Amino acid sequence: MTPSPLRVGIAGLGTVGGGAFKILTEQAAMLEARAGRKIEVVGVCARNRSKRRGIDLRGVRWFDDALGLVASIDVDLVVEAIGGAESIARNVVEKALSMEKPVVTANKALVAHHGFRLATLAEKHDTVLAFEAAVAGGIPIIKSLREGLAANRISSVSGILNATCNVILTTMQARDQDLPLVLKEAERLGLLEADPSIDIDGYDAAHKIAILSALAFGGKTNMDAVMREGIRRITIRDIRYAATLGYTVKLLATAVRVGKGVAQCVHPCLVPKDSYMAQVSGPMNAVRVVGDAVGEVIFQGAGGGEMPTASAVVADIVDIARGAHYRPFTLPAGKLKEFPAVPFSESERCYYLRIPVADEVGVLASVTALLKRQQVSVSTFLQEPHPDRPWAELVLTTHKTREAAMQKAVAAIAKLESVKEPPYMIRIEEI
Amino acid sequence: MTPSPLRVGIAGLGTVGGGAFKILTEQAAMLEARAGRKIEVVGVCARNRSKRRGIDLRGVRWFDDALGLVASIDVDLVVEAIGGAESIARNVVEKALSMEKPVVTANKALVAHHGFRLATLAEKHDTVLAFEAAVAGGIPIIKSLREGLAANRISSVSGILNATCNVILTTMQARDQDLPLVLKEAERLGLLEADPSIDIDGYDAAHKIAILSALAFGGKTNMDAVMREGIRRITIRDIRYAATLGYTVKLLATAVRVGKGVAQCVHPCLVPKDSYMAQVSGPMNAVRVVGDAVGEVIFQGAGGGEMPTASAVVADIVDIARGAHYRPFTLPAGKLKEFPAVPFSESERCYYLRIPVADEVGVLASVTALLKRQQVSVSTFLQEPHPDRPWAELVLTTHKTREAAMQKAVAAIAKLESVKEPPYMIRIEEI
Repeated sequence: MTPSPLRVGIAGLGTVGGGAFKILTEQAAMLEARAGRKIEVVGVCARNRSKRRGIDLRGVRWFDDALGLVASIDVDLVVEAIGGAESIARNVVEKALSMEKPVVTANKALVAHHGFRLATLAEKHDTVLAFEAAVAGGIPIIKSLREGLAANRISSVSGILNATCNVILTTMQARDQDLPLVLKEAERLGLLEADPSIDIDGYDAAHKIAILSALAFGGKTNMDAVMREGIRRITIRDIRYAATLGYTVKLLATAVRVGKGVAQCVHPCLVPKDSYMAQVSGPMNAVRVVGDAVGEVIFQGAGGGEMPTASAVVADIVDIARGAHYRPFTLPAGKLKEFPAVPFSESERCYYLRIPVADEVGVLASVTALLKRQQVSVSTFLQEPHPDRPWAELVLTTHKTREAAMQKAVAAIAKLESVKEPPYMIRIEEI
Repeated sequence: MTPSPLRVGIAGLGTVGGGAFKILTEQAAMLEARAGRKIEVVGVCARNRSKRRGIDLRGVRWFDDALGLVASIDVDLVVEAIGGAESIARNVVEKALSMEKPVVTANKALVAHHGFRLATLAEKHDTVLAFEAAVAGGIPIIKSLREGLAANRISSVSGILNATCNVILTTMQARDQDLPLVLKEAERLGLLEADPSIDIDGYDAAHKIAILSALAFGGKTNMDAVMREGIRRITIRDIRYAATLGYTVKLLATAVRVGKGVAQCVHPCLVPKDSYMAQVSGPMNAVRVVGDAVGEVIFQGAGGGEMPTASAVVADIVDIARGAHYRPFTLPAGKLKEFPAVPFSESERCYYLRIPVADEVGVLASVTALLKRQQVSVSTFLQEPHPDRPWAELVLTTHKTREAAMQKAVAAIAKLESVKEPPYMIRIEEI
């Protein structure tokens, strides 16, 4: 008996939906052999029917209304490729799950904000919510955490999860250019989202680490628990000073088990320039997982883009076509924990600090006195003339220091009269 | 209704079986939550019952006979951790599959030599043969090729797959020591297999690339198609010369789609010292997969050892406990291809060549004449006195050259009277 085909409806034909459509139609024979049954795109919907997309929609039913696509009796599985945590994307996913139709999505905002509710809904209706494409492009990191590393008690997940920020930082360093210039060029090339803040201010990486963290540690996604700081304040001078000190600047996302809680954060970091993460450049993503049995495992690949993301979407579809049936976050929803918040202020590490100061007698003494008051011990120190202003810049790194102490010291230093602009602190991670 | 427990029998309590036993018993609660049902070790067997293994076998039935364990009505799933391509390991796997019992194995030799037959048997009896642990320790590369990258037409799989050789090469370079000394030390530390030839001569890496190749390209495992060369002839001088030229020596395994065939080979390579693979040192493994949608994805982690390997064994067990049901090589056995052999002699690349010669007039002219006769074009050249002998060594790299031409040139050079020892050629891979 030939198994029945899996009939797919794609809601949204932008980068992700269009890419998935291409693979599903162009590689139909290969996918049928691998899945053991035909996978057919039977319906699509998008805002603009007449837009040219370079895909052949003949023979595929068009829906003007995404919920109509979901409800169609011909559609067995829904690909949500609309995007956004609220509005229509959420309605589409909720309606599909409620109709016991499996959902495949690349929507990190949706999963990060509503993962627990959606997982509960999927479980109630005994169907699957799949979101491999939500994190790290085509790298199978979701599957690896859910299945491939299932024998491990995970102690940390971390990495470079936002390709846009990594391209920007890599370009700043390669071209020795400041952020505004690089941003302008990226905008001209169409590399930025309509709202660049989602990338630049770390929201996107925060969504992703919230998802990885929930999977790795068996918790509920909790965006409020993610400490988040973006890359806006990084200057080319920070990148140069970092290089002088033997570091590269990266936007890292980390989730670490601390006691009974999980500390989740996204912020720029100085990483040693010979370290693994320092070598991950341009649009690459990398994820490092540490487990009690496996030790350290690292995954690296393109962090996004049409085809890598579509690769993940289609892998999820093939899985479901084969009969895969799993809990979205591995554990039954009722067993997903709310981890106690780990106060970021109590975390410890070394720090980099750049202080723009008037080039006058006594500044250094004032700064070091304020550091000493908070028990911040200086490891390296350099002073250089500011290249564009009649100031100097003090640049120092510290020995291991509590975040709270460092914050207090920085706030106090900022108030000194001879400090010309707010000092800028970057955390150092020996990852 | 509580689902019934999955009852596991472990045949073989060495490194792999013992490690799996530890995880299954020590992490029973975590695994039950993740699998959705209890996983219990109900039976074990090994050669020596009284051996101290640091595991508590109370409450677990002991079998003196592995086939008795397989046949036991209490055993739902069999872990084959005996090892070896023939004899009892093969019997255990065949018997279990014939009894419709899923099998989890770390046995790369068995899967590489008999993968197609075993997959056919598993399919006939509608059960699962799982072998994540056979390649690259705890890295979920088998699952990634079978599932996570299912949307891709793969063009190549390559990497560092033998941890022992990588440790030896890394140690030679770090200590500036020659192979026999490093081997002796490794033997003293118990790092070598009873038969070190399996690692040193590249058989182990060949098993692994045959398995990855079958999975990636939808073919039958075929050890005869793997061109294999080990690391025995590498001297510390090669490693030094390579460093001078900007390279690191690694044992690489590669499987590349060439026309309708697949070229599979294992041999030492010079890789650029800034390349990804050059950084993979000591007991680490790394696998690079290139697919048409995903681009390049790289996986890195410990290449073996008790707990990383057990991590993979237990992940396979958890998968099966959850109801995973897949073809061992993704496609139905009847669809697995026998790829036409790709003659290695037709492959092209750059080469490194070291020629120990008498330090006398005319040698260089004779050597270069023989290279020219085969149209081998020299890229870089250096001559140094041999450190231990009253000879010189000519070291050269070539421009892109056909393997057959290079082999002919080397054979001709070897016959020159002034060539004191067989020339040694290493392939250069710009991976």
